[in-house]
Formats: sequence, C-alpha cells, structure tokens
Amino acid sequence: MTVPPVTAPVPIAAPPGGLDQEPHVDGARLLLGIAELAEIGALPTGGITRLAFTPEEDRARAYLMERARRADLRARVDEAGNVVIRRRDAEPGMPALLMGSHMDTVVKGGRLDGAYGVLAALEVLTVLAERDEPLGLEPVAIAFTNEEAGLFPYPFFGSRGVAGTLDPSLRYSSRDGTNLRPVLARAGGDLSRIRDAAWARGSIGAYLEAHIEQGPYLERAGIPVGVVTTITGRVTFDLRIQGRSSHAGTTPMDDRADALVAASHAVLAVEDLARSGECAVATVGQVESHPDQINVIPGNVRLAGEIRDLSGDRLTAAQAALARVADEIGGRYRVRVRVRTTGRVEPVPTTDVLRQVVRDAARELGLATMDLPSGAGHDAQVVAEIAPIGMVFVPSRAGISHAPEEDTDPEQLVTGADVLLRAALELCRRAREPGWSR
Amino acid sequence: MTVPPVTAPVPIAAPPGGLDQEPHVDGARLLLGIAELAEIGALPTGGITRLAFTPEEDRARAYLMERARRADLRARVDEAGNVVIRRRDAEPGMPALLMGSHMDTVVKGGRLDGAYGVLAALEVLTVLAERDEPLGLEPVAIAFTNEEAGLFPYPFFGSRGVAGTLDPSLRYSSRDGTNLRPVLARAGGDLSRIRDAAWARGSIGAYLEAHIEQGPYLERAGIPVGVVTTITGRVTFDLRIQGRSSHAGTTPMDDRADALVAASHAVLAVEDLARSGECAVATVGQVESHPDQINVIPGNVRLAGEIRDLSGDRLTAAQAALARVADEIGGRYRVRVRVRTTGRVEPVPTTDVLRQVVRDAARELGLATMDLPSGAGHDAQVVAEIAPIGMVFVPSRAGISHAPEEDTDPEQLVTGADVLLRAALELCRRAREPGWSR
Repeated sequence: MTVPPVTAPVPIAAPPGGLDQEPHVDGARLLLGIAELAEIGALPTGGITRLAFTPEEDRARAYLMERARRADLRARVDEAGNVVIRRRDAEPGMPALLMGSHMDTVVKGGRLDGAYGVLAALEVLTVLAERDEPLGLEPVAIAFTNEEAGLFPYPFFGSRGVAGTLDPSLRYSSRDGTNLRPVLARAGGDLSRIRDAAWARGSIGAYLEAHIEQGPYLERAGIPVGVVTTITGRVTFDLRIQGRSSHAGTTPMDDRADALVAASHAVLAVEDLARSGECAVATVGQVESHPDQINVIPGNVRLAGEIRDLSGDRLTAAQAALARVADEIGGRYRVRVRVRTTGRVEPVPTTDVLRQVVRDAARELGLATMDLPSGAGHDAQVVAEIAPIGMVFVPSRAGISHAPEEDTDPEQLVTGADVLLRAALELCRRAREPGWSR
Repeated sequence: MTVPPVTAPVPIAAPPGGLDQEPHVDGARLLLGIAELAEIGALPTGGITRLAFTPEEDRARAYLMERARRADLRARVDEAGNVVIRRRDAEPGMPALLMGSHMDTVVKGGRLDGAYGVLAALEVLTVLAERDEPLGLEPVAIAFTNEEAGLFPYPFFGSRGVAGTLDPSLRYSSRDGTNLRPVLARAGGDLSRIRDAAWARGSIGAYLEAHIEQGPYLERAGIPVGVVTTITGRVTFDLRIQGRSSHAGTTPMDDRADALVAASHAVLAVEDLARSGECAVATVGQVESHPDQINVIPGNVRLAGEIRDLSGDRLTAAQAALARVADEIGGRYRVRVRVRTTGRVEPVPTTDVLRQVVRDAARELGLATMDLPSGAGHDAQVVAEIAPIGMVFVPSRAGISHAPEEDTDPEQLVTGADVLLRAALELCRRAREPGWSR
C-alpha cells in the first residue's frame, strides 16, 4: 500500500508547562487488562481464538463488565450484544463521546486487534469518571461484537446495530447453520428488539477508536502515534474454476483441464493486480480443491480473496481487471472460470476535526505523529454513517496482525491510550464551548 | 505420456475357420454384473464411492460371492480380505491361472476401474468351469482389496497380501486413525494370519488382468484391444511451504511471505516437469492452506502430488529436478519449502510370453491390438513379484477415469473379456504340453 510520507512529523518537544495537571491513564492497569483478556480463548499452541457469539466471547463480556464494575462504572449488554459502559452519574440527554472497538478475534489471532481499543476506551472512561471536571460530551466505552465475523458472516454486526443498519427481518445464522437468535439472547442481546441497539443514533458527538496499526509503517518510521486519514475500501470475491477430473497417471498433459493449474495462474494474477498498481493490496486467502486426491487431476477449485484500495474508483477498476483475468485464464487453460463479488465496502475518510484533535493531543504529549490510511476495516467505518470518527494507531511489531505474533511495545500501548484520553478530554471540553458543533 | 506407435496393427481378418467351436463369454451376463455392481456405492449426484474396508466394499464382496455361487463356483474371503473364486471341482496342487483386479474405487470414481477386471475374470472362470476340457492351469478369479487406498493408506493391500509382502507386525490404520484389524475381520479377513493370504505364492502359473485403459490412446487409434508393455513407475511427494500469516489488508505486498503464492509457483513448476519432458506426467492433486481465511495471507500450504514415468532413471532425474525447483521457490519467494518423497514404485514390464498370448488371442478374434504402457498402477505390478503377468486393455471413452464420466463401449467390454477368455484358455492348454514352463 502506498502511504503518504510523514506529513506532520512534529518535532518532539519537551511537554509545554502545566501538563502535570492533566490526567494520564494508569498504564499498569491498562496492561493488566490486556493480559487478562488475552487469557480468554488462548490456544495452547499460541494465539487466541475468541470468535463472536461463542462461550469465549461471552466470557470476555463478563470479564469486561466485572472490570467496569470494579471501576465504579455501569455496564450493560445492548440488544446487538455490545457491551456499553457509562459513568455511574452519566448525564442523561448529553451527546455521547463514544470510544471503543471489538473483543472478538479471527481464528488464531493475536491479543491486541480490537481488545486494545476496548481496554484503552475503558481506561480513558475510568480516568474521566474519576475527575470532577464538567464535560460537554458524555464519555461512553463500547465493545462491539462480531467485527471479525469468524463464525457468523456479518462483519461489524455490533457497530451496525449501533448505526441502526441491521435488518431485523433477516434470519441471521452461522456458516454451519446455527441460528443467531438464541445465541445472541444467551449473550444478553435480543434480535427481536435489534432496532433498540441504535439508542445513540443522532446523539453521538464523536467516535474515537484506538487500534494497533496492523501494518509496518509506524514502526519503520519510528513514530509512536498514527492519525488515520481513511479506512480502506474492500472488495471480496469468489473465483470458481471448473476443469475436468481425471486420472493423474493416464491423462496426457495435453489432454488436461487441470483446475488447480488454472487456479495457480489465478492466484498469481490476483497478486499481480496489486503489484502492477491496479489496487493497493490483493490477496487470495482461501483455496479448496476437489476431489483433492493425490492421484486425481483436480476438477474444481474455489478461491476466495479480496482487493483493497483507498479509492472507490480504483476498486471498481481492479474489479474489472479481475474479471478480465478470469476470462483470460478460462480461455487459455480450457477451464470455466466464474468470478463473483461477494462484498464491497467503500473507503471511509475520518473526520478532519477529529484528526486534528488527535494530532494536537499527541503534540501536547510531545509525541510525533504520522498521517496514514488504515489497510484494515474497523468499526469506526460503520459508526461513520451516524457520527464523526477519529482513529489513533499505535505501531505493530513487524507489521504483523491476525496472527499469534501480533504485538506492540507496552510503552506504546500506554502512550496511545494517553493520546486517546487527551483527545477525548479536549473534545469533551470543546463541546462545552458556545457554538461548538461537530 | 509418449506412447509407442501402434506396433502390431494386425490387419483385421475374418476369423479363421473352426472358431465357432471356441467358447465365448456371455456378454449380457457380464454387462449385467457390471451394472449391478455399479449400484453399490453409487452417489445420488453421479459417480461411485466404494472405498476399501467400508460397508460398501463389504456389500460388493457379498454381491460377488453370491454371483459366484449362482454360477456354481466356490468363493471365499482370504486373510487379506480378497475374494477368491474357484471351480467347484478345482484340481488341488495344480498351478493357478490367476485373473482379476479390485472392487474398491476412488472417491467419486467410475464404474469400470477395477470392477471390469473382476467381473471379466469371473465371467471367464464361469465359462471355463462350464467346459469339460482338461486344463493345465487351475483358473482362479480374484477381487483384490484396497488397490486405490482411498481410506487406508496401503495401496495394493490385497495383492500385496497374495504376494506375501505385507508386514504382519505393522499397526495398519486409516488416515483418521481407525485400526484395520477389526474392520478386516468384519470383511472376513484376519490380520494375525495375514501371511496365509500368500496361499498361491510359488504356484501361480500366470496372472492376467483386464482393465480399462484410463487414457485416450486406444480410442484415438480406433483399436479395441491394448497389450500392456510396462506399468508406469510412480513417485509421490509432499511439498510443504511455510511463509508468514498476516493481515491481508495491512501487510504491504513487498513485506509478504505468502505461502499460497509460492505454492502456486510450485504447482506450475510441477506441471512444467512433464511439459519440459523430465517425466511423462506430473500432477499436484491435493492442496491444503492455513489459516484459510479470506482476510489472512496464507502462512502454510501443503501440496501433495506425483510424477510418473516408464523409466526408473527418468523418475530419479525428475525427483532431483523437483528438489531443485523447491529450493528455487524457497529462495525467490522468501518461504521455506520442504519436499519429501512419500512413495516410489518402480516401472514393471509385463511378461513377454503373456503379451504374445494376448496378441494372438485378439488376432484369432479378428481384432487389431496396440502395444501400450499403462500410466496407472495395477495389482498386476505387485503380482509380478511372484508370477508372470499380462494385461489386456479396452478403450476408455475420452480417456477419462477416476471420475463419474469413466466409460467404455459395452461391445468393447465384451470383446476385452473374450480376449481374456481366449488367452486364458490358450495358457491352460499350453500348460498341459510337456516341457511347458512359465
């Protein structure tokens, strides 16, 4: 992915005077929370599998609510299965400053994707709740459910519930056919009242999400804070190749219609879409071959993958290029190739004013920032439909994510939460000023 | 596969006089048997799955034994699970003329691979048993078990039992861990007495196997009978590629170690081994990718495939070329590639004198023959360790096998069985002549 050069490499200055008066997060408390949550769904071989709507996520909800209770906050599960945490003396009717992320992981994922943003939001809310300062926005921490859609194929289910874009008439079910209704009820949600999950629609002053970068740019630049400019757009596709199964020993090479050979060309052609600059990244993540026997020429192969870019027009062009590639492979290797778009999410820019608030917060803390796009999708892009959004990134070690090796320097995790706190406080203060609007 | 040109395109002559005295198979009976056996393991969507040591193969054994009983023959299951069928008045001590093939199929295979050779052998035995003519070899039909090794990974289990090359001390188990012992016992075999399956070792005068070609050469040449010269050698291999899993949206193209991209290059390189003439055919039949999620770059891929050739030296050279290819891919795509040979079977020539007997039998019937190698493995290659072998091929429609579309013209199936009968009778007669030896 092409990333703009560091646009605002603010020289790291000594903190301006008076900062000692400003609050900081409790780093030890934050890191302990991250470590404890990481035990839920931990695999003996490393990594974490904590899919949404499984007992593991239920335990994560219980853990988070207990943690909120101990911090003297009020936690509840909303109709969509999100954990919503507020101050005990929350001011009714005041617009919300929503902060959060998700607690579900991919299969064999890491301990920070999502979890960091949730625990950073809880930490910030805890600090804000402990203060006496009157605020112009009501800070709310939220743990969205099913962002990753590891089991139930509805990514961003929780944030879509909050945005009010879930269809209550749909029969939601998992890939293996399990009905979501009773599972959601067990988690504390209620599919028949799913519209009520959009409780804050129209009254969210701003949404802030802290997250690990999941890419290598911050680490490479040696910059601790990323200010997200755009959340990348994404097209997912399904490529089905039909050749002809036959005996691997007796079918001459020239008589073959080997679906796996054609699929291999397709995998390389997809990679080439990105390498040739048609789009930012392109990946084939899944492959399934039939009959999958060592002595039979594969007759059918299914590939599933995705294309991402920061521009909707480029996404469209890459989709067209993929269709051309499929036609070409079909003709050249005597197989039938069908390509189908299975999903498309448009690129979503963050809100200008929130980007500036994050940059300023970092500068006040003496931290350099870098503007950069997000290659990954985030709940923020869904919340963007109903509120201004901002995102704070912290570096990912070696840029690795969605894998057991996912990691970030503990100090940087604390720093990121401090930036979130500072930005949140600034927004809450600014909202008290006359004439403030989003 | 390069196949010698038609070496003996015997001009189709009118059958020499007196042939009406010679026996013929009962074509309708043979075809009915093939149709009935095809119902066992038939899939609603087409094709047949009748794996060895499953209830489907048990039913096939029962069907075959009932069919033998009705033809007034004696059938039993030997220690290895093979069905052995003899004349009711079989002469004890007389060397055997063994004829047969196997009844197990691959997953979603066809109705002729193996089944045709078993039913043709039974038909020939039936005709020979009905005659009064004294024979110099005792004709025996056999249905070997587990030639395809679809479930229990011991190909040619039945014929290896007869050849006496099974290791009685081994714990035989299926890919999913099922112990073979009770399963074999249910089928009528006995693993603790497996050595007794080699009852005929040292007393088999000849082995003849009729089979579909499984390739396109006979059909293309318009020749009804193939005389097999050599059964191809085969090397199976396993190729493991270790890259690095990471987020498909956030990992820049240049930072990737995508195991599926490397595997795609490997699939094409394996294909190229055959296309560039290193070996006759080369195929990757299996692929398995981890973590196999649409939004995660594949970190580990396993490929399994095979290389075949009629020359042992060329097989060895192709193995070395495969190792070089693996090294190259490892270096070029920043992944670790390990290639492992999982099996090697040497090419096996058929016996000269039996080839001539088959050619002569066809000529007597007025049929052109073509000498050709077998690209597929057959029980005959195992029996070759203990007896002279000969093989009769009939054409395969479009050369397709190991697939539901596997087919042969019914007339050609009957013709092939007639050639088998004529060759068997000739051998049984010849064995009565003084001084005959294999």
